[in-house]
Amino acid sequence: MSEAAETLDGWYSLHLFYAIDWATFRLVPEEERETMITEFKNFVNTQSEARTTHTGDQAVYNITGQKADLLLWFLRPEMKELNAIENELNKLRIADFFIPTYSYVSVVELSNYLAGKSDEDPYENPHVKARLYPELPHAEYICFYPMDKRRNETYNWYMLPMEERKSLMYNHGMIGRKYAGKIKQFITGSVGFDDFEWGVTLFSDDILQFKKIVYEMRFDETTARYGEFGSFYVGHILKSEDFNQFFKF
Amino acid sequence: MSEAAETLDGWYSLHLFYAIDWATFRLVPEEERETMITEFKNFVNTQSEARTTHTGDQAVYNITGQKADLLLWFLRPEMKELNAIENELNKLRIADFFIPTYSYVSVVELSNYLAGKSDEDPYENPHVKARLYPELPHAEYICFYPMDKRRNETYNWYMLPMEERKSLMYNHGMIGRKYAGKIKQFITGSVGFDDFEWGVTLFSDDILQFKKIVYEMRFDETTARYGEFGSFYVGHILKSEDFNQFFKF
Amino acid sequence: MSEAAETLDGWYSLHLFYAIDWATFRLVPEEERETMITEFKNFVNTQSEARTTHTGDQAVYNITGQKADLLLWFLRPEMKELNAIENELNKLRIADFFIPTYSYVSVVELSNYLAGKSDEDPYENPHVKARLYPELPHAEYICFYPMDKRRNETYNWYMLPMEERKSLMYNHGMIGRKYAGKIKQFITGSVGFDDFEWGVTLFSDDILQFKKIVYEMRFDETTARYGEFGSFYVGHILKSEDFNQFFKF
Amino acid sequence: MSEAAETLDGWYSLHLFYAIDWATFRLVPEEERETMITEFKNFVNTQSEARTTHTGDQAVYNITGQKADLLLWFLRPEMKELNAIENELNKLRIADFFIPTYSYVSVVELSNYLAGKSDEDPYENPHVKARLYPELPHAEYICFYPMDKRRNETYNWYMLPMEERKSLMYNHGMIGRKYAGKIKQFITGSVGFDDFEWGVTLFSDDILQFKKIVYEMRFDETTARYGEFGSFYVGHILKSEDFNQFFKF
Amino acid sequence: MSEAAETLDGWYSLHLFYAIDWATFRLVPEEERETMITEFKNFVNTQSEARTTHTGDQAVYNITGQKADLLLWFLRPEMKELNAIENELNKLRIADFFIPTYSYVSVVELSNYLAGKSDEDPYENPHVKARLYPELPHAEYICFYPMDKRRNETYNWYMLPMEERKSLMYNHGMIGRKYAGKIKQFITGSVGFDDFEWGVTLFSDDILQFKKIVYEMRFDETTARYGEFGSFYVGHILKSEDFNQFFKF
Repeated sequence: MSEAAETLDGWYSLHLFYAIDWATFRLVPEEERETMITEFKNFVNTQSEARTTHTGDQAVYNITGQKADLLLWFLRPEMKELNAIENELNKLRIADFFIPTYSYVSVVELSNYLAGKSDEDPYENPHVKARLYPELPHAEYICFYPMDKRRNETYNWYMLPMEERKSLMYNHGMIGRKYAGKIKQFITGSVGFDDFEWGVTLFSDDILQFKKIVYEMRFDETTARYGEFGSFYVGHILKSEDFNQFFKF
Repeated sequence: MSEAAETLDGWYSLHLFYAIDWATFRLVPEEERETMITEFKNFVNTQSEARTTHTGDQAVYNITGQKADLLLWFLRPEMKELNAIENELNKLRIADFFIPTYSYVSVVELSNYLAGKSDEDPYENPHVKARLYPELPHAEYICFYPMDKRRNETYNWYMLPMEERKSLMYNHGMIGRKYAGKIKQFITGSVGFDDFEWGVTLFSDDILQFKKIVYEMRFDETTARYGEFGSFYVGHILKSEDFNQFFKF
Repeated sequence: MSEAAETLDGWYSLHLFYAIDWATFRLVPEEERETMITEFKNFVNTQSEARTTHTGDQAVYNITGQKADLLLWFLRPEMKELNAIENELNKLRIADFFIPTYSYVSVVELSNYLAGKSDEDPYENPHVKARLYPELPHAEYICFYPMDKRRNETYNWYMLPMEERKSLMYNHGMIGRKYAGKIKQFITGSVGFDDFEWGVTLFSDDILQFKKIVYEMRFDETTARYGEFGSFYVGHILKSEDFNQFFKF
Repeated sequence: MSEAAETLDGWYSLHLFYAIDWATFRLVPEEERETMITEFKNFVNTQSEARTTHTGDQAVYNITGQKADLLLWFLRPEMKELNAIENELNKLRIADFFIPTYSYVSVVELSNYLAGKSDEDPYENPHVKARLYPELPHAEYICFYPMDKRRNETYNWYMLPMEERKSLMYNHGMIGRKYAGKIKQFITGSVGFDDFEWGVTLFSDDILQFKKIVYEMRFDETTARYGEFGSFYVGHILKSEDFNQFFKF
Repeated sequence: MSEAAETLDGWYSLHLFYAIDWATFRLVPEEERETMITEFKNFVNTQSEARTTHTGDQAVYNITGQKADLLLWFLRPEMKELNAIENELNKLRIADFFIPTYSYVSVVELSNYLAGKSDEDPYENPHVKARLYPELPHAEYICFYPMDKRRNETYNWYMLPMEERKSLMYNHGMIGRKYAGKIKQFITGSVGFDDFEWGVTLFSDDILQFKKIVYEMRFDETTARYGEFGSFYVGHILKSEDFNQFFKF
């Protein structure tokens, strides 16, 4: 039996993707639409208090292409808080015109492949805490994709000895570091929670960096042999002060 | 020809997943909605009598994310009782706003890999009976996923000799035992009944334990080489006394 | 080139699966609904005359779970009769509330793997005739699934020599025989007609037998190495005298 | 680099599959429905003039099972004529009740695997011309399926030397010849046009012949090792004089 | 670790595919429909100014078959401009009758496999600039398909040494050159942006050339062993002066 790397787990995470049913929304009288937009804005702003009190965070982006129009990403200390947020969102008047297209349930995760042995409680390490309970950047662009490690007949990640996985992950991490300052990356673990094993959420002011890092990593053995990807979503930031503009005809 | 492990089979099982069509439900006058919620509550409470008489059990959870809003899980002595329950549920007034998203048909199963030879009728063993005809825990969180054993060209579970499967299952079971007290696990067999071979339903008050056990098992050869998974669903308990809160706008 | 086993072909076969749109059906005034149910009952009873005249047969079952509510299975001497039946069914008033979820087009088939050489015309053999033009049992439960024989890189059924296929099929058939008296099995061939190569329809008064036979066969090399399965459907018999009960709210 | 076989290309081809929304069509007053049917009949009859002037051909069949109700197949000298036909069809009143379920874009193709070297322009050969610009038979039954040649790791059709492909295709063709007189076969190429590489359309007055030829070919190495299939559709001829009968309630 | 080829990246790209809901559009009074068509025409014409100012380009085609009716392709200097265009388009009155069927997010890309070492800034090279910021041809026919390079167990493009990829790409490019003058080809990179790694968009006045080039390339090792394809879309040009004709009943 192969040894599992330990993980550190932070806030629970829920990515919600929605398409907007513009044709039906248009039928709503303008004044009512404005009330709905205001209610939605209030909802988002209320949720944003979690950022102030450092009990969570959220992000709202306008997805490019037809996979979705909106991505709402929420981080919270308990999974049931995410259920509550989703239920509250579903009941907003404007949500009658949101068509669910994809969601992702996970938890902020740091893998311990590179950790040294130490007596320190990692959850007390300020650097670790900052990554498990992060403040999300308000970057221009977002990128989300879920991924697995392959379990093929010849190349099976989960049958590799710990040392080999460690070495592969080290090289993999070295590529990531080259993008420090250009991209902020958040890994959320979803084994047992959703259909892929991890979600990757990237932020950058330069969307081309998403293509560069994912392309460069594809030649890295960790990805080339063992990476399996779900759908890729990219989007542009949608600030609550721009909701009126975004939703109006 | 390889030898099949014998299974012990208990109550029949039906997992029903539904999304709620909130946009249409909102159009129903509030008083009527309350009548519908009460009718649904009565239905669930009536079904719950099966638990009292030990002729079945049920569970209702609020699924996280967009795969579903509700999971209703029913266990009964006969499959046709599950048909009757599903038909009755479909005809509830509130079910007009339930959109079926997934279901799973199976039967509570104990595999006999680890059983010793004995003259005893296992169905008379109280420990076995308690597992075949279980009382479900009312834990905070649930996790459900269906799975197969792979029949690949190199690694084909069903071509392995009994002894090898026994030894793999023994190691696999050892991981499970580490989670005793944290997770309650129910295996239901669905070969010949549904599209995967087994359904796994886990209960815990700490949702992170689902991730920990599934992740740890992924490095176990039984899973790493032979496990194939369907979709993962997690949810938070929805008690009938909270239906009003859950369904109200 | 590998040699194809000859097949004997009997009645053409059409499995039709429908979900019922209960929410819309409920909107129909009760009296009208009763007229529709009666029309449907008359349609089924009229079709049933084919059984009396031995020019076909049919079966109606209530499918468990969300894949469908109804399965209607028709056997007829000509494929165009099945087109006519489907078209007539589609035009029934009640069919406005039937949502097609799956169908399967095939022909009752006996494979000739185990046949000895003989001068006899097999179509004149009474035992063969009874299987090609069968009277379906009115068992409590039904199970349907489509299947293929795999054409993988290492294990390719269609590249095996006739003798090896014959020997594999012999062992496979031996398992089936153990379930004689418990299960009635009908094989329909669909190569060139539908997306899988065969459909398997099982009948039993004890639904657990479906799980037992399919599980036991999974360890048989024919299935373990070469069997590929589609979706499994199980259901409980729905007699025309129970239509009123089934469709009423 | 492997050498591509040359192909001869004739008329462009568009297969259009539609389900009929009977529930909504029924709501149309009978007289209006009759006007719609007449308009559809006129459309089909007008298109049929292409057959008379030998500038194309068409076929209309009633598909068995739930994949579709109607197949309309059009052949024309230019692809843009097929766009025009599809657009015209979409705008027919009756098309409001046609639900698109599948389509296939291709071009009548003769592969040149078996051609000898010659100075002759094959497009001037009357036998070749008759096959590239065919008159479709008005047979009782039709069968359509799309297919690919596999590019697996061990068995990759496109990496085989020309000579080997030629020899495999020769044997493959020999099976086809056995069905001359029973089946009329049309191959349309769709590389670069649609998701599979070829479409196969068969006509016969005896639908069982479709099963026989496809089953026999499955044991031929060309198919067993290299054939990959999409969905199979079968149907019964629907003559324009039978439209009234077909569409009426 | 294998070395990634550098890419040059030009305009961002958004392919939008829509089916038209003719049945609902027909219900709109003719005069209103004409207003909608004019608004759509104005939108397209306004976007076309980007071509004049060389700050982007666009193309509108009528897709053959049921995958879509319309393809709108936009190229712009910033991804957020594409979000803005998509949002504006969604809010056009006529867009209430456009059903999104597929979209593709990418960026015009030149791979550097064949580039020599030079001190020159390639983005200043006029030939390179013309390809990164192209003027699209107004050809009769378009073809679009997304593709990946395979990462199989034996044949894994991303584990090949740079030299081998270079040599494979050289041969691959030689085929492409044979179609110069017949086909205009545009490669857009979508690693990190969408589900495949590249989009290929071809233009030609002779649609048969699409089949010829894709078929010939399929025998090239780069494609035969490593190419994996998504759906193929072909269409005929739809000029804004033909919108009235196209949309009218």
